[in-house]
Amino acid sequence: MNPLIISHLDKSFKKKQVLKDISFVLEGPHIYGLLGRNGSGKSTLFNLINNRLTPDRGQVLLDGKPVLEDDDGLEQLFLANHTTLMRKDEKGKVKKYIRLANQFYPDFDQELCEHLIRVFDLNVNTRIDKLSTGYQTIFNIILALCVPASFIFLDEPTLGLDANHREIFYKELLTTFAKRPRTFIISTHLIDELAQIMDQVILLDQGQIKLADSVENLLAHSYALTGNQEDIEAFMSNYHVIGSERIGNQFTVYIYDTKELTDLPDTIQKSPIDLQRVFIELTTTRGGLDYHEA
Amino acid sequence: MNPLIISHLDKSFKKKQVLKDISFVLEGPHIYGLLGRNGSGKSTLFNLINNRLTPDRGQVLLDGKPVLEDDDGLEQLFLANHTTLMRKDEKGKVKKYIRLANQFYPDFDQELCEHLIRVFDLNVNTRIDKLSTGYQTIFNIILALCVPASFIFLDEPTLGLDANHREIFYKELLTTFAKRPRTFIISTHLIDELAQIMDQVILLDQGQIKLADSVENLLAHSYALTGNQEDIEAFMSNYHVIGSERIGNQFTVYIYDTKELTDLPDTIQKSPIDLQRVFIELTTTRGGLDYHEA
Repeated sequence: MNPLIISHLDKSFKKKQVLKDISFVLEGPHIYGLLGRNGSGKSTLFNLINNRLTPDRGQVLLDGKPVLEDDDGLEQLFLANHTTLMRKDEKGKVKKYIRLANQFYPDFDQELCEHLIRVFDLNVNTRIDKLSTGYQTIFNIILALCVPASFIFLDEPTLGLDANHREIFYKELLTTFAKRPRTFIISTHLIDELAQIMDQVILLDQGQIKLADSVENLLAHSYALTGNQEDIEAFMSNYHVIGSERIGNQFTVYIYDTKELTDLPDTIQKSPIDLQRVFIELTTTRGGLDYHEA
Repeated sequence: MNPLIISHLDKSFKKKQVLKDISFVLEGPHIYGLLGRNGSGKSTLFNLINNRLTPDRGQVLLDGKPVLEDDDGLEQLFLANHTTLMRKDEKGKVKKYIRLANQFYPDFDQELCEHLIRVFDLNVNTRIDKLSTGYQTIFNIILALCVPASFIFLDEPTLGLDANHREIFYKELLTTFAKRPRTFIISTHLIDELAQIMDQVILLDQGQIKLADSVENLLAHSYALTGNQEDIEAFMSNYHVIGSERIGNQFTVYIYDTKELTDLPDTIQKSPIDLQRVFIELTTTRGGLDYHEA
């Protein structure tokens, strides 16, 4: 699989710059998590890459060619989001849209589609504009998993889904990924759940890429140190602190640093932290990554 | 605090019975989680209790009187859901609605309101119909935490909230609950997160109450047993099995049973399970609780 290269994208709406000089590379096959707070620009970024919006600057390249100028390239990309088929004038039934997807994509995975309709218990005779929030999401997920694209973008694929449906989604995603390796890029607010699935993280913060790394690296370089404040403050100055917390006399700092932790005093305890904690500390308005670098 | 008694509620829409003979008691002060799958009737139940819908049968009693016939009683209840203030003809700014809430409730907690506006970074000059999904939720949360009601119903208070905003919500809820104990009833799909906060669970499944218990009891009576299938099948027949799973040669059954577990063979391992797992196993279409009772 050739990589998809996102190169120097800018986008403003009216006077507000939403994305600033966004560059990164999507390799394959991987499952990427695109993480970011409400309003960080995730949906805009998905729309720009998939040619639903035009960037002010920059381009998206596949096989060295701009995707925009290349119909074969565009067919390698698929975006499922909550506006995809939810136009108010669409009143056809679910089965009609599945038939259309089949006609548009000769390699549409009809067998998987029927399986997913069954396990999610989707009524294909429901009119598309009458689906509940949860089932709109499910319908989008089903199409996304069955189209033959190489880069599949899923914007909040768990919105409105109950815990059982989320579990079905994660399992089915892993199964189809194993059978037919390709690249998924998934935005979500349920970080700890997606952490079980994704292997790569892209963190968007205030319109900029703050971090792009593997989940494995990110977790290996992130941890908590707990002890009394004096000991910790004396020790931590060499490391990149992303947050801190006090409970009673216990002082905890969160570290994200690629340097190895050496000479940790006995009075300080190191413990692992989960991805959601890393995310929260990196994206609080207090400053996140920049707080220590300043 | 007098309990709120929900007594034999029925509700149908057209031919479909959505709620069937719902009875339970809300005591105070507690934080209840109302759990249930998409379509299980959670929102309808909230609307019935709060007099936004009329039941076909049954009543809601406070201090022995039907809430419906008692203005003082109704003021003790507050429901925050996504339709509360989102009528399309409402075009005032956020601050206008906060002023109205202040006028309506003499004991509105204005100090807390200002604090929450600050920590959630809500722009009070935004028009109510222009708020994003996340900020609509935040606005509802703020009102709900500041009104002087005794029973506060929150329908999906984390919909569209990023991880940081969810963390703020959980912290602020616990803080105000400690300062001014009252009863919260919260529906959510993020069970593991709410499990840190709630102390009582009500489980709604296909329009009926399947379970009402404390979180402590529910977790004490729920666990996984892992081993080879033969050993487990020989042993488990005396216990209430809610689900099973096989990974390679490992067979796991999930148990929910108030009986004490005795004479567990060495070949079988017992391990705790989390609330989301209990929920998933109790509400799968395979049958959940009924599967074993049948």
